[in-house]
Amino acid sequence: MDKLDKRDRRLAISIDAMGGDHGMRSSLPAVRRAAARHKAVDFILVGREDKLKRACKTLKMADVPNILIQHASETVEMDELPSVALRTKKDSSMRVAINLVKEGRANACVSAGNTGALMATSRFVLKMLPGIDRPAIIFQVPSYDLKTQTVGKVFMLDLGANVDCTAEHLYQFAIMGAELAKISGIENPRVGLLNIGEEEIKGLDSIKETAKRLQQDPGINYIGFVEGNQVYFQQADVVVCDGFVGNVALKASEGVMKMFSQVIRAEIKNNFWLRPFALFASPILSRVKKRLDLSQYNGASLLGLRGTVLKSHGGADARAFETAILKAIHEAQNNVPEAIHHRIEAILGHEAVQR
Amino acid sequence: MDKLDKRDRRLAISIDAMGGDHGMRSSLPAVRRAAARHKAVDFILVGREDKLKRACKTLKMADVPNILIQHASETVEMDELPSVALRTKKDSSMRVAINLVKEGRANACVSAGNTGALMATSRFVLKMLPGIDRPAIIFQVPSYDLKTQTVGKVFMLDLGANVDCTAEHLYQFAIMGAELAKISGIENPRVGLLNIGEEEIKGLDSIKETAKRLQQDPGINYIGFVEGNQVYFQQADVVVCDGFVGNVALKASEGVMKMFSQVIRAEIKNNFWLRPFALFASPILSRVKKRLDLSQYNGASLLGLRGTVLKSHGGADARAFETAILKAIHEAQNNVPEAIHHRIEAILGHEAVQR
Repeated sequence: MDKLDKRDRRLAISIDAMGGDHGMRSSLPAVRRAAARHKAVDFILVGREDKLKRACKTLKMADVPNILIQHASETVEMDELPSVALRTKKDSSMRVAINLVKEGRANACVSAGNTGALMATSRFVLKMLPGIDRPAIIFQVPSYDLKTQTVGKVFMLDLGANVDCTAEHLYQFAIMGAELAKISGIENPRVGLLNIGEEEIKGLDSIKETAKRLQQDPGINYIGFVEGNQVYFQQADVVVCDGFVGNVALKASEGVMKMFSQVIRAEIKNNFWLRPFALFASPILSRVKKRLDLSQYNGASLLGLRGTVLKSHGGADARAFETAILKAIHEAQNNVPEAIHHRIEAILGHEAVQR
Repeated sequence: MDKLDKRDRRLAISIDAMGGDHGMRSSLPAVRRAAARHKAVDFILVGREDKLKRACKTLKMADVPNILIQHASETVEMDELPSVALRTKKDSSMRVAINLVKEGRANACVSAGNTGALMATSRFVLKMLPGIDRPAIIFQVPSYDLKTQTVGKVFMLDLGANVDCTAEHLYQFAIMGAELAKISGIENPRVGLLNIGEEEIKGLDSIKETAKRLQQDPGINYIGFVEGNQVYFQQADVVVCDGFVGNVALKASEGVMKMFSQVIRAEIKNNFWLRPFALFASPILSRVKKRLDLSQYNGASLLGLRGTVLKSHGGADARAFETAILKAIHEAQNNVPEAIHHRIEAILGHEAVQR
């Protein structure tokens, strides 16, 4: 694992500058702001050199010493099949950005491109950590503490990378999620398994088996099953589920939030007595949405790889893209893959037979 | 199926009067209101006769001609294991209420009791419709039409009865959901399959197989995959998923909605400039919640049985319990099990070989 350890030298973050719905329009302003805040970090913009140079000049960031350019001739389209991107676009901005991590020239990579392609390419180029079977997508969702009336965050994984998970996969997700939570400052993260509450028809066999494994692992602060609604009320710090369930739950949550604010706006607009408050409702709702809107918590980590890759939302604006970059810096500083590797190594020592 | 057809005589609804968190305190006032509105329907209160008689007297509903009492000596507890309730409580208010449907003395049953026990007992007493393997829980969730700015409803099933579903099960859910939607006045209901949007890692094999079956069935208006967020924006009239995913999505949605309103209240309360509006925010939020809150859409149907059973939310108040009763009347009037049976029979005719 020596190539994961680069703490003795200057940090570098590679940026897929062309990916996402907005391409350079969000990635470049984001990098400019991040580079001004983090002068000890190098930012390597990956994409068409001519375009990048021109855009950097326009944005007055051509001469910023910690912004560098790495040429890549192609771009992965948002609707491109991952397998096609992987096979045919070997010089895409996404691929080259990941290559930089592989080659040790960058400590982390950020892309707003096609999730499937990013996942497939990262896995192909960087490879999995020993002892981890599949990469997982982890994301922090807002969660409310009813006692302190504050909005905190809960790590949730997997959110779409894996649709059919065995107990072994879910157990690995729990380990990876707990490590990331620790690095994010949660000392003894409470790990919960997403499940449904009905007696006797409680959950799938794989979840029951995962629960057993987690109970037996003294290195995990396993707190039991968590139901869908409890995710949003800080019942756990890390919530583990398979990618299908996680993706549906996250998207349903987004949908409800959007519906809720639409209905509030419509209710105020269409009610004569409330109309005077329409002016005030907008800023309230905007503030609330800013605190809660899932897309504002930009930057999902791809865990389980031999390198750090952050996925920005495809539709992220410059501000949101910057959030993802800051997360990448934090993860690179703390070398998340190495932390997971050490943890897995410790377990493999104990359970080598089982695997 | 002649015992399902009772349209020629007076309708009767059996009520598990003792079930739920509030027992008679919500069931009795609900029945009093429903009985006043529906004089052509008999309401059979099932529970401890002495208690029911006393409570009916207090509530001045002892002499209402269409309210009857059926004695049952036991009550299923909310946390009782379904198998234990099924084996040991043969004279529970829940069991007797379902027996009345079986015996043809009631056309539908409503219970706010323990979901697992209600499901197990209904299945044991009433049996499955021929050609249907498992009962499913179906519920109407609020869904917003962005164009007309109106809140409509979308049927979603299964919501927790089945955790591991094959394509055959999901296909049967689609048929049952579509039949209920038709009976509820949707002429050619659009049926969608809940799935995640990633390319190539799109969903489980069972979902892909279900999609194929639905595409080949001319009796179903299959519109394709629906993502978690689209459920809330009327992309389909019926959304089909397995019970695990459905339960998590529904509960996550409830959780987000609750968090959202908590944060709005806190935001207004803690912000000096917004404090004057706190007074107005409460009624707005209450109105919005009333339109959207999932527990207000009370009454989930258990589909696939040889009889109509409605599950009221355990914590339902009298008003919500009444909503479930009205749904039961509507389903009894339209004989939902018979409609599903006819549809399945038509398919079995075509596909008898496959089964």
